[in-house]
Amino acid sequence: MAILNLTEESHLHIEKVRARMREEGIDAVLIADNANLYYICFAVFRGYIYIPAEGRPLCFVIRPIDLLGDDVVSLRKPEQIPALLAERGYSQPAVLGLEMDDLSYSDVVRLHKAMGDCSVRNASPVLRSARMIKTAEEVRLIHADGMRQAAAYKKIPHVYKEEMTDVEFQIEIERQLRLEGCLGYYRTSGRLMEINMGSVLNGDNADCPTPYDFAVGGGGVDMSLPVGADGRTMKPGTTVMVDMCGNFNGYQSDMTRVWSIGDIPERALRAHRISMDILRELEKMAVPGVPVSSLYEKAMEIAAKAGLTDYFMGHRQKALFVGHGVGIQLNEWPVVTARSKDVLAAGMVIALEPKFVIPGVGAVGVENTYHVTDNGLECLTPFPEEIANLL
Amino acid sequence: MAILNLTEESHLHIEKVRARMREEGIDAVLIADNANLYYICFAVFRGYIYIPAEGRPLCFVIRPIDLLGDDVVSLRKPEQIPALLAERGYSQPAVLGLEMDDLSYSDVVRLHKAMGDCSVRNASPVLRSARMIKTAEEVRLIHADGMRQAAAYKKIPHVYKEEMTDVEFQIEIERQLRLEGCLGYYRTSGRLMEINMGSVLNGDNADCPTPYDFAVGGGGVDMSLPVGADGRTMKPGTTVMVDMCGNFNGYQSDMTRVWSIGDIPERALRAHRISMDILRELEKMAVPGVPVSSLYEKAMEIAAKAGLTDYFMGHRQKALFVGHGVGIQLNEWPVVTARSKDVLAAGMVIALEPKFVIPGVGAVGVENTYHVTDNGLECLTPFPEEIANLL
Repeated sequence: MAILNLTEESHLHIEKVRARMREEGIDAVLIADNANLYYICFAVFRGYIYIPAEGRPLCFVIRPIDLLGDDVVSLRKPEQIPALLAERGYSQPAVLGLEMDDLSYSDVVRLHKAMGDCSVRNASPVLRSARMIKTAEEVRLIHADGMRQAAAYKKIPHVYKEEMTDVEFQIEIERQLRLEGCLGYYRTSGRLMEINMGSVLNGDNADCPTPYDFAVGGGGVDMSLPVGADGRTMKPGTTVMVDMCGNFNGYQSDMTRVWSIGDIPERALRAHRISMDILRELEKMAVPGVPVSSLYEKAMEIAAKAGLTDYFMGHRQKALFVGHGVGIQLNEWPVVTARSKDVLAAGMVIALEPKFVIPGVGAVGVENTYHVTDNGLECLTPFPEEIANLL
Repeated sequence: MAILNLTEESHLHIEKVRARMREEGIDAVLIADNANLYYICFAVFRGYIYIPAEGRPLCFVIRPIDLLGDDVVSLRKPEQIPALLAERGYSQPAVLGLEMDDLSYSDVVRLHKAMGDCSVRNASPVLRSARMIKTAEEVRLIHADGMRQAAAYKKIPHVYKEEMTDVEFQIEIERQLRLEGCLGYYRTSGRLMEINMGSVLNGDNADCPTPYDFAVGGGGVDMSLPVGADGRTMKPGTTVMVDMCGNFNGYQSDMTRVWSIGDIPERALRAHRISMDILRELEKMAVPGVPVSSLYEKAMEIAAKAGLTDYFMGHRQKALFVGHGVGIQLNEWPVVTARSKDVLAAGMVIALEPKFVIPGVGAVGVENTYHVTDNGLECLTPFPEEIANLL
């Protein structure tokens, strides 16, 4: 039998959600999305969490059948929820929040109908903005990810063999991550990020456009999953960029490092140094109160001053961001773009990934996951940033 | 530059979709779900496919920017679609199909608004039922998966080491599958199936209930992904059930085999034989015209006659199906349940997985992927079914 209880940490999260509910005039939210379920109670189950603006939240659990606890109500289907709430003295919400960006149209319509006479609003932004500011415990979990991801990345030079393909190289990195405890599952938001355990980009494959919302693309080996390694043999004079899964505990870190196969041209080494320069600059300026958009602008400005605009954040196809929030999902808020309206706040966790694609060589650049503190950025993915030679 | 053209095979799929559209009174469908995009044009891209009841389908591509072809129209956002259609002489559909079970509520609302004055219907069942009957080419692709999955499973006895944990064992199987060409990505429908490359269940972990819609559960190693291997050391006298990813080409096969660690009790061996008996019986009776529900009933009946009902399709928590369609997604139609209204048809591809959970020993049983033909079931996952001893 497994026990599900709302912990002190759960209640810290619930209070963040409630603060946003009040701003939006929402009387209660009914949560069904797996990432949001995990955010509230550190467990994924089939069911729902009901959070009223005031009073005790309840977990409605369909499966697993053995999940019990003080805050758990077992049920078969969502249509039972109103009666189960009424029995416990809860009043009907006038305005109910449902996760309209995360659940299917059919699910939202079914839940609205099940919950009876109330108006509904989109609770997805409520949850996403609550999750944007991490607690100390969440930062600790992401830091723990970063340490384990770094331990696996340390093995990377040892798994390389000459004349390997990029896919073979990735497979050995996947294995090292898994042996280190990586769950191997990227939890992402939306349908624009499908991938298996992350991306390994060698040489000009880094310049291959992808349909997905990753910073750099890659053609993949099959049109059903057109991203990442494409099966090419890794040749001397190229780089290989490793941006693999950092999910060890439900939260995740996001870290990219680059290795070279033999010597690479100075123009690639220089672009890599510019990437590190950008990170050093952003680490200093990223303090609470600074607009997120100014991080993007500063990165663009440094790339432009170096004459590298054409290669920054992709070459043939460009990403329009240099970073993103990270936590339970890989693509959390804030998104570090020119159009962001967000302002940095203490407790945000963001991955910054100023990357260049150098034709004829490959991708260069560094990505770290950072905790926003009053003193600037605290790096949660400590690992040497320089390009090391695999040969 | 990548070329996207609708092939002869695409047009076979489009005609199936149109037949279902006519039955539902839908004038056009606008497709955005990745699995359905892949179904129509054998490529995943960010964008939409517009299929009118008559006339030429169009692919509206946002990303990648270099995807071109005779049937491709580049665009930035879906709001441009009506004007782009009108320019090309398409009339406004009165009834538009949108994938309401697959897209988020917000996406469906946005697309409806973008498409202007038309009523909308749910196109998800249209696509799912079209995809239910495979073409010869689709069967060929799934058979190719099955052969490669079998080649990887053949390596399984060689990666086992005494005192291994189930997770360590799974990692080596993942590696063998990937080296064989497995894409490592399970494309599933809905939010009830999260997993990394499949399930390895040892001993009593097979009896641990999961929230997800897999036939057998497992506790997993983290509450954020409560399914599959739980990190236990594999002890003599237990079984290990391997049900791993068969996606090598965008389509996938689904195959489960069981190994024992040393000798296991006769009651487990007998249950395994009953599973094979069930498959032999279903292979004969599953011809076009037979109700899908009768396969479920026959499986239940054989399990009951053997006195094994308590252990069939789970013990503490039971699955309510013994099989499911498989193709681009792992959980396609038909679902082999008591409540199914579907009737078997030539060209269906179904995985049948009569499994037993034997307390104190583990899971036993066999899963094959089959092609429904006029002469019964054709197995697409040929591999010895008996329990082999890893010691």
